[in-house]
Amino acid sequence: MNGAESMLQVARRAGVDVCFANPGTTEMQLVAALDAVPGMRAVLGLFEGVCTGAADGYARMRGIPALTLLHLGPGLANGLANLHNARRAHSPIVNLVGDHATWHLGADAPLTSDIESLARPMSGWVRTVHTAAQAGQDMADALAAALRPPGQVASLVIPQECAWDAAGPDLPAVKVPAPAAVQENRVQAAAATLRQGAATVLFLGGRALRARGLRAAARIAAATGCRVMHETFFARLERGGDLPVFDRLPYFPEQALGALGGAADMVLAGTRAPVAFFGYRGGASSVVPDTCTVSVCAQPEEAVEDTLEALADHLGAPPYAPGSRPERPAAPSGALTPDSLCQALAAVQPPGAIVVDEAATSGFAYTLFAGGDPHTILGLTGGAIGQGLPCAVGAAIACPDRRVIAFQADGSGMYTVQALWTMAREGLDVTTLVCANRKYRILQFELMRAGVPEPGRQAARLTELAPPPLDWVSLARGLGVPGTRVDTADALVAELRRALAAPGPSLIEALL
Amino acid sequence: MNGAESMLQVARRAGVDVCFANPGTTEMQLVAALDAVPGMRAVLGLFEGVCTGAADGYARMRGIPALTLLHLGPGLANGLANLHNARRAHSPIVNLVGDHATWHLGADAPLTSDIESLARPMSGWVRTVHTAAQAGQDMADALAAALRPPGQVASLVIPQECAWDAAGPDLPAVKVPAPAAVQENRVQAAAATLRQGAATVLFLGGRALRARGLRAAARIAAATGCRVMHETFFARLERGGDLPVFDRLPYFPEQALGALGGAADMVLAGTRAPVAFFGYRGGASSVVPDTCTVSVCAQPEEAVEDTLEALADHLGAPPYAPGSRPERPAAPSGALTPDSLCQALAAVQPPGAIVVDEAATSGFAYTLFAGGDPHTILGLTGGAIGQGLPCAVGAAIACPDRRVIAFQADGSGMYTVQALWTMAREGLDVTTLVCANRKYRILQFELMRAGVPEPGRQAARLTELAPPPLDWVSLARGLGVPGTRVDTADALVAELRRALAAPGPSLIEALL
Repeated sequence: MNGAESMLQVARRAGVDVCFANPGTTEMQLVAALDAVPGMRAVLGLFEGVCTGAADGYARMRGIPALTLLHLGPGLANGLANLHNARRAHSPIVNLVGDHATWHLGADAPLTSDIESLARPMSGWVRTVHTAAQAGQDMADALAAALRPPGQVASLVIPQECAWDAAGPDLPAVKVPAPAAVQENRVQAAAATLRQGAATVLFLGGRALRARGLRAAARIAAATGCRVMHETFFARLERGGDLPVFDRLPYFPEQALGALGGAADMVLAGTRAPVAFFGYRGGASSVVPDTCTVSVCAQPEEAVEDTLEALADHLGAPPYAPGSRPERPAAPSGALTPDSLCQALAAVQPPGAIVVDEAATSGFAYTLFAGGDPHTILGLTGGAIGQGLPCAVGAAIACPDRRVIAFQADGSGMYTVQALWTMAREGLDVTTLVCANRKYRILQFELMRAGVPEPGRQAARLTELAPPPLDWVSLARGLGVPGTRVDTADALVAELRRALAAPGPSLIEALL
Repeated sequence: MNGAESMLQVARRAGVDVCFANPGTTEMQLVAALDAVPGMRAVLGLFEGVCTGAADGYARMRGIPALTLLHLGPGLANGLANLHNARRAHSPIVNLVGDHATWHLGADAPLTSDIESLARPMSGWVRTVHTAAQAGQDMADALAAALRPPGQVASLVIPQECAWDAAGPDLPAVKVPAPAAVQENRVQAAAATLRQGAATVLFLGGRALRARGLRAAARIAAATGCRVMHETFFARLERGGDLPVFDRLPYFPEQALGALGGAADMVLAGTRAPVAFFGYRGGASSVVPDTCTVSVCAQPEEAVEDTLEALADHLGAPPYAPGSRPERPAAPSGALTPDSLCQALAAVQPPGAIVVDEAATSGFAYTLFAGGDPHTILGLTGGAIGQGLPCAVGAAIACPDRRVIAFQADGSGMYTVQALWTMAREGLDVTTLVCANRKYRILQFELMRAGVPEPGRQAARLTELAPPPLDWVSLARGLGVPGTRVDTADALVAELRRALAAPGPSLIEALL
């Protein structure tokens, strides 16, 4: 058994079963080892950002790490943007990055670079393997690091001789750290604050947005009259069925401040205090009113759902009773607009759908339609666009019995369009809905906000995706995915229904 | 004048005229400033790797830096792979990377990351602007750093307030450093070594591969009988017309060692001593025989062409007289193979063509066809694939009067396929020839070399780009570029002739 095999054996025994890979010469022993370890599935991405984004989506749905397999510094670099999103999502991921044999590093061969420096900003844990004998333990440590609550990105650099040299006989087990237990003193303090009622905001994020957390929050609100809101850029949000619906904090800082206006106290569960996505001239970093106190009942790395349930119990809240919930909207008709597009999706999405929302400005209205069957929304956590299509790949591989909908802006989608090919190769049940407004619409807003209401020609062209218009149906065909184009709400509803009922991937370009 | 305008004014006055951009909110003041500085052309890439690769291609042809405009850490990260290639090519580039306003960094907003850590491995110079008043000087320093011989990547991080605050009144000039002068003692020592004749190899790279350097090397060989070879992964090589042709060092280390077999001395001009691209088990880093001495007549950062001419003069060599040179090959007929494909391209490429060669295994034979009209080859310097199509964009913008041919492997091309859209938007005269073998063929070789002659199913699938087959004609159409598909040498010749005579971009998918 060589170092590569020992690493994959350790990972497999710990329950890891997928490796999203775009390997090169320095990873050949790891590639060969994929066939030597039964139950380890290799999935090829034609660009590394597909691999890392897929690992993120997989982790959000399964809660366990996938591996990525990346080719030296440049291969890792291509995957960093989606690792940035994964880091913000607290997704457990183990990146395996091949490097030159140690004795070859001094030659400064063309592909040599400082891999650890590249890895560190987007990783919570970085290590370089030193010997093949230690490689299995390094993998076990990487997995333990990735699984440290609330989950993080772990990057393991593997000099080539550590993959091809003989490994030790042991296959170390992974010691999975448990989340910190419920903090009773915080529960009591939070209860006292929340009992003040409507001037208190219970602010949810992270694992508080799973079903248990949401139901407990609804009990807390019922018992205290507090307001409940949740973070803007969540990793995963459970919706529909009998789940309660809470307001999402708006994106722009002045809107967020407005939504929190009148709040005297904020209690955090599973997330940090909200901040502005960008700092604007004359603006501020925080979107919490100056007069509002902030306290924590559960940090992201603690037992967030247990804490919320303990808090509800402490408050003497009765069991969760679903209140009046929004209806599933009717299928829209007529013109295709961002609003009718969002409504169409909400109207037809099937039970159990996983909606990967990178629809940007076109999708602002989507989360307002909260009714209907149970479904899951995966969001863009770190603002690094190009996350949607890869994340959909990972979610579909994690949950083969659920329909995945990649709800995708056109500008963002172009960053990692290669993901469509992986959907085709793996036969994934992913329906991609491209919101084709042919603009970086958000940048047109931001130019206005920066004091440029009438941009010059060059600035304007930097925010426009036409001419030439992107033809998403041809792009999809080029990557092995059947596609159609619609320009009315009626046609969108019909095509969505058809696509969602068919096995395998498909794409609908919705012209806005 | 704000900081953003002062930076672009300083760059424009120093001769910079292009900015390859994929901006976001933190770069809005720089975007607006593009319209305020006459003569600064903004070119949008739909993915940052397009921008950085284009800046590389531009620098290789113009010798001056283009700007890139990138969005915080993730935007820079997406451009790093091609900055890695640019670093290896010694291409002068100035990356402008927006960051949050300084007062907002502490909030750790979603897009926050350690930009300098990301930039450093692929940059020779990194700085963060501290005040808008200093921004112009920082730009001047960045340009000077980029132009420091032999050229390097300079990355300037711009916190948002340094773009929007008022700048100082001065527009500092850029102090362009000159290359180190000819080293007379090295010329004399090199002359003594080279006079030993055929046991000495004059090894060329960098600027030695421009016309002046090549002609001087031919004079040196004529005067001494030395052998002349050049580096495998050159940034730019001039060919055709009356230029001499020298052997390229082979790729695989055992072949390179063989090609250098019998060499007693090696004299380097414009490059380092060659090393193995990868370290193999039981192999070595150097491909120079143990018994061969290595000396330097000109480092890459020195006056390489002047040195070679001084060396030729010192040796009393007569003026350059073109010897027998290879003929332009005939247009091939019959089956389409890697060899006939390379021959077809060499047979029909027009005078002055710039051939961006990322054809990988399919293009191995191309540089063997050295005859015909003058042309330029731009190569993959750093091994980070996805360089070809972006580099072609930059070369076409640098040289609008020359035809650019993107000679492109299919696997590599998928990394930065978004570049086709920029070719369409800018109406660039780029003919893309995709070598569609539907494999990562080099990895199939490398698996064999790693001792895996019969890969298992998973390993094999990681080296195959089908199923589903990539349909490059549809991909091109999706990005606004007309395309055709050929599967015989005759059809390839006919389509190449048609495409090379038509204005604007087009793509030919050659099925191998």
